[in-house]
Amino acid sequence: MIKTCLSNVRKTVPLVHNITNYVTVNDVANALLACGGSPIMSDDEEDVEDITSICGGLNINIGTLNKNTIPSMFKAGKKANELGHVVLLDPVGAGASKLRTNTALKLVEEIKFDVIRGNISEIKTIAFGSQTTKGVDADVADAVTEDNLDKTIDYLKKLSADTGSIIAVTGAIDLVCDSNSCYVIRNGRPEMGKITGTGCQLSAVITAFVVANPDNKLEAAAAAVITMGLAGEIGFDNMQPGDGNSTYRNRIIDAIYNMDEETLSNGAKYEIR
Amino acid sequence: MIKTCLSNVRKTVPLVHNITNYVTVNDVANALLACGGSPIMSDDEEDVEDITSICGGLNINIGTLNKNTIPSMFKAGKKANELGHVVLLDPVGAGASKLRTNTALKLVEEIKFDVIRGNISEIKTIAFGSQTTKGVDADVADAVTEDNLDKTIDYLKKLSADTGSIIAVTGAIDLVCDSNSCYVIRNGRPEMGKITGTGCQLSAVITAFVVANPDNKLEAAAAAVITMGLAGEIGFDNMQPGDGNSTYRNRIIDAIYNMDEETLSNGAKYEIR
Amino acid sequence: MIKTCLSNVRKTVPLVHNITNYVTVNDVANALLACGGSPIMSDDEEDVEDITSICGGLNINIGTLNKNTIPSMFKAGKKANELGHVVLLDPVGAGASKLRTNTALKLVEEIKFDVIRGNISEIKTIAFGSQTTKGVDADVADAVTEDNLDKTIDYLKKLSADTGSIIAVTGAIDLVCDSNSCYVIRNGRPEMGKITGTGCQLSAVITAFVVANPDNKLEAAAAAVITMGLAGEIGFDNMQPGDGNSTYRNRIIDAIYNMDEETLSNGAKYEIR
Repeated sequence: MIKTCLSNVRKTVPLVHNITNYVTVNDVANALLACGGSPIMSDDEEDVEDITSICGGLNINIGTLNKNTIPSMFKAGKKANELGHVVLLDPVGAGASKLRTNTALKLVEEIKFDVIRGNISEIKTIAFGSQTTKGVDADVADAVTEDNLDKTIDYLKKLSADTGSIIAVTGAIDLVCDSNSCYVIRNGRPEMGKITGTGCQLSAVITAFVVANPDNKLEAAAAAVITMGLAGEIGFDNMQPGDGNSTYRNRIIDAIYNMDEETLSNGAKYEIR
Repeated sequence: MIKTCLSNVRKTVPLVHNITNYVTVNDVANALLACGGSPIMSDDEEDVEDITSICGGLNINIGTLNKNTIPSMFKAGKKANELGHVVLLDPVGAGASKLRTNTALKLVEEIKFDVIRGNISEIKTIAFGSQTTKGVDADVADAVTEDNLDKTIDYLKKLSADTGSIIAVTGAIDLVCDSNSCYVIRNGRPEMGKITGTGCQLSAVITAFVVANPDNKLEAAAAAVITMGLAGEIGFDNMQPGDGNSTYRNRIIDAIYNMDEETLSNGAKYEIR
Repeated sequence: MIKTCLSNVRKTVPLVHNITNYVTVNDVANALLACGGSPIMSDDEEDVEDITSICGGLNINIGTLNKNTIPSMFKAGKKANELGHVVLLDPVGAGASKLRTNTALKLVEEIKFDVIRGNISEIKTIAFGSQTTKGVDADVADAVTEDNLDKTIDYLKKLSADTGSIIAVTGAIDLVCDSNSCYVIRNGRPEMGKITGTGCQLSAVITAFVVANPDNKLEAAAAAVITMGLAGEIGFDNMQPGDGNSTYRNRIIDAIYNMDEETLSNGAKYEIR
C-alpha cells in the first residue's frame, strides 16, 4: 500500500547519494530529510565510489553537468550497479543541448537505472535514443492530457520494457510505469512549476522510497510521486495573503515533513492502468 | 511605461541562461520565476553555446568564477552576441582580487553587454579599466549620496558611452543610465543588504525585463530595479515579530511574485535626469 | 563574557572567506550575515589568496571537496596562516571516504587551525590520524552522553594539545575545548538534525566570532555554539502548525539575526570543566 511505502522510509532512513545540480541541491537535501531519508552529496571522481558504497541509493541529476562531474556519474552509477543499489536518473534538460542529450543516453546505455524521472520532453529524448521506441516518438504529444493518455501510457510501457527502468513522467498528470502497469496520478498543483526544483526534489525522494521498499519498487516510486503532489496541494492550502513562490517552496517541504500515513491515504488520487 | 515592462515579462516568459555563482543560484532561479521569466543554469564549456542559443538572454555573474567557468562565460557571451541576444554582466567582487578584476575587464573588452550591474565599487573597477573614464575615478565617491549624485551620474553616462552598455549601480540610491538619461531610483530598504544575493537576483531579473522589452531597454532595466526595490519594501512591511533575514529573503521573492501593474506604478519612486 | 563575544561580532562585522560546499552555502552566507559578519565565497586556486588576504577569517568546509577546490583549500589556509588570520576546519564526512579522510588529515598536518569543528565521528577520524591520540580512539564512544562525558572531554583536551586547535564537537551535548578547559553546552534541539547545514552554518559563525574576539578565542567559539543552539530553541518555539524542517531552517537563521545580548545571557546553558 502507498502509505506503507512512506512508513518504510521513515523506519529505515535510507541514505541517498546525490550527484546533482547546484541550483536546487539544498532543497533536495531538505526534501530528503523531510520524507525520512538522509542525504549525502559527493561529485568528485575520486570520492563517489566510496560514498555510493555506504549509501542505499544513488540519485544522478544532470542539471548542471560538467566535465568533472560527468565521469563521476558513470563511476558512481557503475559502482552502485555492481553493489545492487538503487539508481535513479533525472535527465534534466535532455533534448536542450547535445551534451545533455548525449550524456543522458550514454548513462542509460551503460548503467542500469531502477527509475528514470523527467518531464515528457526529457523522457521522449531518452526514448528516441533507445532502440525499440525510436520512431514512435512522433506519435507522442508534448504534454500528457486526458486525450492522449492511453497512447502515452503504451509508449512509456514500451520504454520501460526497453530500458528495464521504471519510467516516471511528471506534469499536469503524473505517470509511473513499468512494462505492465502504470500509476496515473492526479495530485499536485500547477503553481509547483513556479518554484525551481520540485522535480529535482522528487527524484531524490523517489530514490529514498525505492531504497526503503525493495520488493515493491513501482508502488514505492508512485508513492513518492503522490507524496510530493499531495504536499504541493497541502502547501498551497497553507498559503497566506502575500505569500508567493518562495514561501510556497518552504511549505511544500514542510508538508512532506508533516505527511502521515492517514493524510497520504486520504489525499492520494490515482488509478492503475 | 514602467508597469508595461513588467507586463511584457509576464506575457512573454523570457528564458534566461545564467552562468552564476553557487551561493545565490537558487534564489536567482526563484526570483526569475517570480517576475515571470524562466531560468536555465549551465556553465560547462561544452554546454553553454547550445543552452544560450535557445534562450532570450544571458546573465553572467562572476561571484564564484573558476578556471572551468571563465572560458564558458566568454563562449556563451560571444555566442549570445552573435545571435543578438541580451547579455548582462554582474562583476561580483571586481576590485577584490586580480582574477575577478581581470576577468571582468576582459569580458567587457570581448563581449558587448547590454547591461552591466554592480555596486559603485565594482562599477568603478570596470570604469578604471576602460579607456575614456580612466583617471576620472578619483572624483567619484564610494557611495552614491544626494551630495555627489550629479557628479556620479555624469561619470556613469560617460562609462555607458564608453562601453555601449546600460550601467546599473545599486546601493542606497539606485542609478540606471545610458549615455543620455539616468533613472534615479529611491525604492528599496537598507535591510536588503543583510540578505545574501539580492544583487544577483536583480541581475537575473533585469536580464528578463530587457529581453521582454527589446525596444525599450533602459526603461526595462529601470523597471526591474524598481520592482526589486519595491518588493524589498513590501516584503519588509510583511515582516512579523521574530522574522529575520532568512524570512525576509522569502518575502522579497514572494513580493516580486505578487507584484502587479498597479502596485508597481503606485510604489515606484524615481526621476529621470 | 559570552554576550560580549556576540556584541564584538556586531561591532566589527568580520569578513569571512568561505571555501565551502555548494549544498548549504546560501544558508552559510545568510547565517553569517545574521550573526553580524559578512561572507565572501571563493574557491578557485587563482582567486583564494587574494580573497583570504582581505578577510579576517577563513572557513574551510570539505562537504563537496573536489580536485579543483582541494588545492585551493591548502593555498588559502597557508596564506591565512602566513597573515595570522583565523582559520577553521569543518571536516564534513571525514571517515566516510578515503578522499575526505586523507584531505582532512593533510589539512590538519599542513595548516594551523584555530578551530576544528565536527561531529564526534569526524573528530575521531582527525584524532586517529594525529600522533598523540592514536590508539585512544577505541575508548571514545560514537555519541557524547552524560555517561561518557568526562572521558570524552579528556580525549578532546588531548587532541587540542596535539593539534594546537580548539576542538568543537556538536551533537546532543556540544563540547568546545582547548587543552585546559572545556565548555559543555546543552543548548539546541534534536530537530536541528532534520535540516541540512546547521553544522556548516555554525562553522562559519564560529569563524566570525573568533575573528571578532582575538584575545578570547575559546570563549568566542563557545559563544557561537551557544548562539546557534539557542537560536535552534527560539526558532523551534516560533514554529506554527503545518511548519516543518524548511520553515524551521528559516526560523533558526531569523533567531540568530534577532539574538541580543540579554536573550543570549539568559538562554545560555553551559558549564566549564
